Amino acid sequence: MAPQPTKEDRFAFGLWTVGWQARDPFGDATRPPLDPVESVHRLAELGAHGLNFHDDDLIPFGSDDATREKLITRFREALAETGMVVTTMTTNLFTHPVFKDGAFTSNDRDVRRFALRKVMRNLDLAATLGAKTYVFWGGREGSESDAAKDVRAALDRYREGIDLLAQYVTDRGYDIRFAIEPKPNEPRGDILLPTVGHALAFISGLEHHEMVGVNPEVGHEQMAGLNFAAGIAQALWHGKLFHIDLNGQRGIKFDQDLVFGHGDLLNAFFLVDLLEGGASGVPAYDGPRHFDYKPARTEDMDGVWASAAANMSTYLLLKERAAAFRADPEVTEALAAARVGELATPTLAPGESYDALLADRSAYEEFDVDAAAARGLGAVRLNQLALEHLLGAR
Amino acid sequence: MAPQPTKEDRFAFGLWTVGWQARDPFGDATRPPLDPVESVHRLAELGAHGLNFHDDDLIPFGSDDATREKLITRFREALAETGMVVTTMTTNLFTHPVFKDGAFTSNDRDVRRFALRKVMRNLDLAATLGAKTYVFWGGREGSESDAAKDVRAALDRYREGIDLLAQYVTDRGYDIRFAIEPKPNEPRGDILLPTVGHALAFISGLEHHEMVGVNPEVGHEQMAGLNFAAGIAQALWHGKLFHIDLNGQRGIKFDQDLVFGHGDLLNAFFLVDLLEGGASGVPAYDGPRHFDYKPARTEDMDGVWASAAANMSTYLLLKERAAAFRADPEVTEALAAARVGELATPTLAPGESYDALLADRSAYEEFDVDAAAARGLGAVRLNQLALEHLLGAR
Amino acid sequence: MAPQPTKEDRFAFGLWTVGWQARDPFGDATRPPLDPVESVHRLAELGAHGLNFHDDDLIPFGSDDATREKLITRFREALAETGMVVTTMTTNLFTHPVFKDGAFTSNDRDVRRFALRKVMRNLDLAATLGAKTYVFWGGREGSESDAAKDVRAALDRYREGIDLLAQYVTDRGYDIRFAIEPKPNEPRGDILLPTVGHALAFISGLEHHEMVGVNPEVGHEQMAGLNFAAGIAQALWHGKLFHIDLNGQRGIKFDQDLVFGHGDLLNAFFLVDLLEGGASGVPAYDGPRHFDYKPARTEDMDGVWASAAANMSTYLLLKERAAAFRADPEVTEALAAARVGELATPTLAPGESYDALLADRSAYEEFDVDAAAARGLGAVRLNQLALEHLLGAR
Amino acid sequence: MAPQPTKEDRFAFGLWTVGWQARDPFGDATRPPLDPVESVHRLAELGAHGLNFHDDDLIPFGSDDATREKLITRFREALAETGMVVTTMTTNLFTHPVFKDGAFTSNDRDVRRFALRKVMRNLDLAATLGAKTYVFWGGREGSESDAAKDVRAALDRYREGIDLLAQYVTDRGYDIRFAIEPKPNEPRGDILLPTVGHALAFISGLEHHEMVGVNPEVGHEQMAGLNFAAGIAQALWHGKLFHIDLNGQRGIKFDQDLVFGHGDLLNAFFLVDLLEGGASGVPAYDGPRHFDYKPARTEDMDGVWASAAANMSTYLLLKERAAAFRADPEVTEALAAARVGELATPTLAPGESYDALLADRSAYEEFDVDAAAARGLGAVRLNQLALEHLLGAR
Repeated sequence: MAPQPTKEDRFAFGLWTVGWQARDPFGDATRPPLDPVESVHRLAELGAHGLNFHDDDLIPFGSDDATREKLITRFREALAETGMVVTTMTTNLFTHPVFKDGAFTSNDRDVRRFALRKVMRNLDLAATLGAKTYVFWGGREGSESDAAKDVRAALDRYREGIDLLAQYVTDRGYDIRFAIEPKPNEPRGDILLPTVGHALAFISGLEHHEMVGVNPEVGHEQMAGLNFAAGIAQALWHGKLFHIDLNGQRGIKFDQDLVFGHGDLLNAFFLVDLLEGGASGVPAYDGPRHFDYKPARTEDMDGVWASAAANMSTYLLLKERAAAFRADPEVTEALAAARVGELATPTLAPGESYDALLADRSAYEEFDVDAAAARGLGAVRLNQLALEHLLGAR
Repeated sequence: MAPQPTKEDRFAFGLWTVGWQARDPFGDATRPPLDPVESVHRLAELGAHGLNFHDDDLIPFGSDDATREKLITRFREALAETGMVVTTMTTNLFTHPVFKDGAFTSNDRDVRRFALRKVMRNLDLAATLGAKTYVFWGGREGSESDAAKDVRAALDRYREGIDLLAQYVTDRGYDIRFAIEPKPNEPRGDILLPTVGHALAFISGLEHHEMVGVNPEVGHEQMAGLNFAAGIAQALWHGKLFHIDLNGQRGIKFDQDLVFGHGDLLNAFFLVDLLEGGASGVPAYDGPRHFDYKPARTEDMDGVWASAAANMSTYLLLKERAAAFRADPEVTEALAAARVGELATPTLAPGESYDALLADRSAYEEFDVDAAAARGLGAVRLNQLALEHLLGAR
Repeated sequence: MAPQPTKEDRFAFGLWTVGWQARDPFGDATRPPLDPVESVHRLAELGAHGLNFHDDDLIPFGSDDATREKLITRFREALAETGMVVTTMTTNLFTHPVFKDGAFTSNDRDVRRFALRKVMRNLDLAATLGAKTYVFWGGREGSESDAAKDVRAALDRYREGIDLLAQYVTDRGYDIRFAIEPKPNEPRGDILLPTVGHALAFISGLEHHEMVGVNPEVGHEQMAGLNFAAGIAQALWHGKLFHIDLNGQRGIKFDQDLVFGHGDLLNAFFLVDLLEGGASGVPAYDGPRHFDYKPARTEDMDGVWASAAANMSTYLLLKERAAAFRADPEVTEALAAARVGELATPTLAPGESYDALLADRSAYEEFDVDAAAARGLGAVRLNQLALEHLLGAR
Repeated sequence: MAPQPTKEDRFAFGLWTVGWQARDPFGDATRPPLDPVESVHRLAELGAHGLNFHDDDLIPFGSDDATREKLITRFREALAETGMVVTTMTTNLFTHPVFKDGAFTSNDRDVRRFALRKVMRNLDLAATLGAKTYVFWGGREGSESDAAKDVRAALDRYREGIDLLAQYVTDRGYDIRFAIEPKPNEPRGDILLPTVGHALAFISGLEHHEMVGVNPEVGHEQMAGLNFAAGIAQALWHGKLFHIDLNGQRGIKFDQDLVFGHGDLLNAFFLVDLLEGGASGVPAYDGPRHFDYKPARTEDMDGVWASAAANMSTYLLLKERAAAFRADPEVTEALAAARVGELATPTLAPGESYDALLADRSAYEEFDVDAAAARGLGAVRLNQLALEHLLGAR
């Protein structure tokens, strides 16, 4: 049977996930609205430890201040009753038609100013609720026509916006870091910062680059056909994996937001292995294991809660399987045979200069190229060992 | 009729393009070997100004020193006779089986050392031939199994390799810059630095980041479904477009290397518009317009030269069409209506602080969201104007 | 300038195209509802000749009979005033939550029965309005989990449904043919009959196969990375191109429904060439040129009408370019050199048996394979000639 | 541990799989040639029961008759010694440059005649070796330019070729059926009959349609983003699954030919479930379980044999997991809750006419649409049950 999650597993959900009413481009809602307070209670019962939400998930766009305060108070009470924490918050800069051409990068300067104000207001709330990470998904920052968007100017404005908000957080003394969530397309034809790589590059050019990282989502990278685990490894290499969005996607198509593991299961296995420590056993990521999925439109509310639980069960199962994989002596032997660990050894010896390398005839002039070429890697055997552990067959 | 290219257009070709014998994964060569000296002469006659090549394109792998010198001398003579220049050079780190698991990131340290030596030797040649750009395409730096490659260690080794070579070039006083060429997959299942974004991010973490940029290829980005012109704009924004590989690709599939324009023609139009200056009229890129394509396997040698010429004709036609687009008063008006230029205006006024923005009630409390939401962008009209210019219909 | 459309061009639009309020999976409507009567008038003014609609586009789901009649009467009057015709009709079997698991192939038999009734009722209306083609897009006929849908049973039910409705139309004496519209995915994770090929195969197994054809949509086939013009050619080969949905799509991603030509322009050129007759000059398709696109969400109502006009302008421009391509003697010569017409000659001579072929030593034993292999096709030259005609450069 | 294969499992391999020397578009061979006789012995030892090969895999192109006979004799002896059978044969119509523009659909009529003769000769051999299925993969039947290939004429020639060969087999009294293998692209830019659907449709138009079915390959359908298990179900529905090619593919990219299961593991599970009988327990397919994969280029010969074994182990593991899934009472209950079996019940009652349906007010006028819409499907729960069985966690 699948293991049961506890708060120590640090699972978190967006309010918009279980709360999705299942309106899609070709269909009306199939489920009633869900009270965020109910979500807090139900997710707590299922074993989650935290929550993430957009301002508008809790407080409908355009609410007056009294309504806003009332809704926040109710929500705080639910948190207190359940011990749930707000791990992360974000701003809805995509649903209202005013953002149809973007928020920080709308051609319309007034919209850009409005967007900054909307974020600042919600950053204040995030600070009071104790959210440590603030996510920026620029779903409308893009275009359907290369004629209608000056990408370089847009990146200037994107940088202006993020840096201004980072300065604001810093000056206010908020204990908050930013995480940019890339996506290649949908709802825009092409979105700025389409992959983890583009976002990491953008961040490197920020004034406040040290407080900005990425929030990669499984499906978003897979919508570009990219290997998610490899992208996460690069984000970790840059020290920039500030948050993660776990879900499932079945290849290059529309954004599916399936349950975690219900897409590319083999890559999900290697992802969990990576996050939970792989060979070293020390987790590579210490933030919440956050699910950003959508319960299928076919499901009723029972199906919603079953699907929420499925995300956590799958993660825990993969964690068990990955641990068994790493503990298997045959795997250890196969990794050594494939010289996987040898890649951690620098190519130059300690203190070796390129002059020394140039002088080393064994490296080139006398290198037996054919013998080296004939060595087999054993990668397929390794992959099969992983698959058999994944299947619980070893 | 299509305009004729001249050396002022700075068109360049890889020797491996016209020289491709058309061996593919399912078929044997359909064309005889082509003498590089003939390629120099023929490309010069067609109007090209420069060349690019891998060491092994000119000098077969494993040649002795005497053979090597003889081949280089013949080649130099061809350059002198034709006035062609070597704009760019690169190393073949992918054909020989020794590189089957990578070069700079092979699990096998001996292979990594051999690869560095192979590059250093060819950098010396590049310097003597006057190549100003040295390209790194890490086609074998990747994996088919997440178990067999530690991506973070691989990025460490990649950085070690590039930084060592950059130091070497610097110390030797060579007037050479590096350009990394990303690709998402093929021949490896997944390749490290899969997109322009991932490469830009990687570069930002190099010790010698200032002398390393990117060499994006049309088809490589389109193999990930990404908007090539938008990726180039981001590379320009980072000041990192050191080189470019122009060709054609028909969507997400194997690497096609079609003639430039024979893939996504609309994006090719916007790319040329961007490179040649767009609204400002000042070219955004001043390097060679380099074609990295493969003459279709169905073609004989006449077809090879016809296809080489087609790349240049298409570029020049698109340049003409883009200039007409930018000169059209109706386009100017449509750009203004879509507020495309307004995106260059900072979101905050000169000297405005976020406190001032917070105090500006017109920005938020009194902002007429619905009125702003109702404004149409006019992006489709702009796109149609571009299409009609592209079709020579205005 | 782009040519002006007339009714002779037989352009048609779905009411749901210009009437789309631009609600998408991440955003609310950006445009007000549009009265179908206004659409009729505006489209007529723009030069369209016909219309297509779902029952619910004209008559809101659940309307009582009196309302229904009133709406139909108003609509008929608009048709009469403008001379517009209803070329095509279809049923909305996807918006209402009752269809969340499909209509003809819902696991729930009651839903299947309801769906059949909904279609039958609308077929009666189609007959009275003179629609000659009735489209079936099974957008909800699919699944997100292979466990939850028995595909073979689903195809049984799909066949049962289509054959029953075909019998109904036949018995009633309606002058209506059916056209099935394939799509690979979205809104379902996987949709039954995902491509033109799957639909054609399905049709071949129908009792009433002779009255059922396909309604391919540009973007739907391109969402599977398929060559649309080639798919249309196969549909024509089977005698099954009963209708067509023209629009634009930028590669494998969510369903974009861009303006025709704003996606893969080169393939759009070859499509129009094919439809309008290609080498023979005799149109291969005599139905309406129907646009199934969505005006971008960024556009206001002016943008809606501009985008509608753009579809027609682009089609006419491509038709002009294709005609010039076919009339160019250099093209004729290049086609002959590439032996394009030779493919119409049967491989066996008239009356030749396989025994005669076996006895023909010139065909095998004495065939000069290397000489045949050395002949160049000249396909790149042909493609470049097409591109130059497309660009109006010849 | 993974179960051991036996001949009863009916696993078969192409000689070209283990024999692939790992030459790819960017690299030379990494492995030596493999004697087909050694392959027979090694595969037999690993537990395979059968073989498949192209003429040129056994007999190099252009061999004289004496050499041909000698090679065939040696091969027969190996079969006799090992008890291995030739399940399937096929013709290489793609490697030699003469086929660069196709075989049955080459623009060059002489090439088409040569191709027919090459097939006929090999059909005689297939008959003597007892192969019951003859595969046609038309890898070169396609184009890179829509201008250079008249698709309708090409389909005429394709039909002419297949029908002629079917007549030949019939007249000769050979006990052989044909299986067409679709592929969307690679090595051609677009290939005719790109998917299972297109091939099924084509077959329906053949004179000898009854003796022609399909040979779908996992990776080929997934290169178009299609659900392989769903495609196989449609092929079964048409009674046309004559053969199958099992392997792995990681999404839409170049043709990877990975080990079975090393791609989309969840779909592989549902595929095996379907083939082995699913709910009924009666296998839906009774032909060989044939692997068409390529041992990764990184592997030496030990890795080749390990990868061959991995295909069979994975299949058997998935078969065990699928059987457990079907035997689980909780799954039975969940299937019932999701009404999966209800889809097998015709929509109309026995003997019910559409008039009776029209008269059934409970079906429409009095149907409680909202109540039906509110029922949850429980598809996510079912999928999670499958996933947990796949992981060996139940």
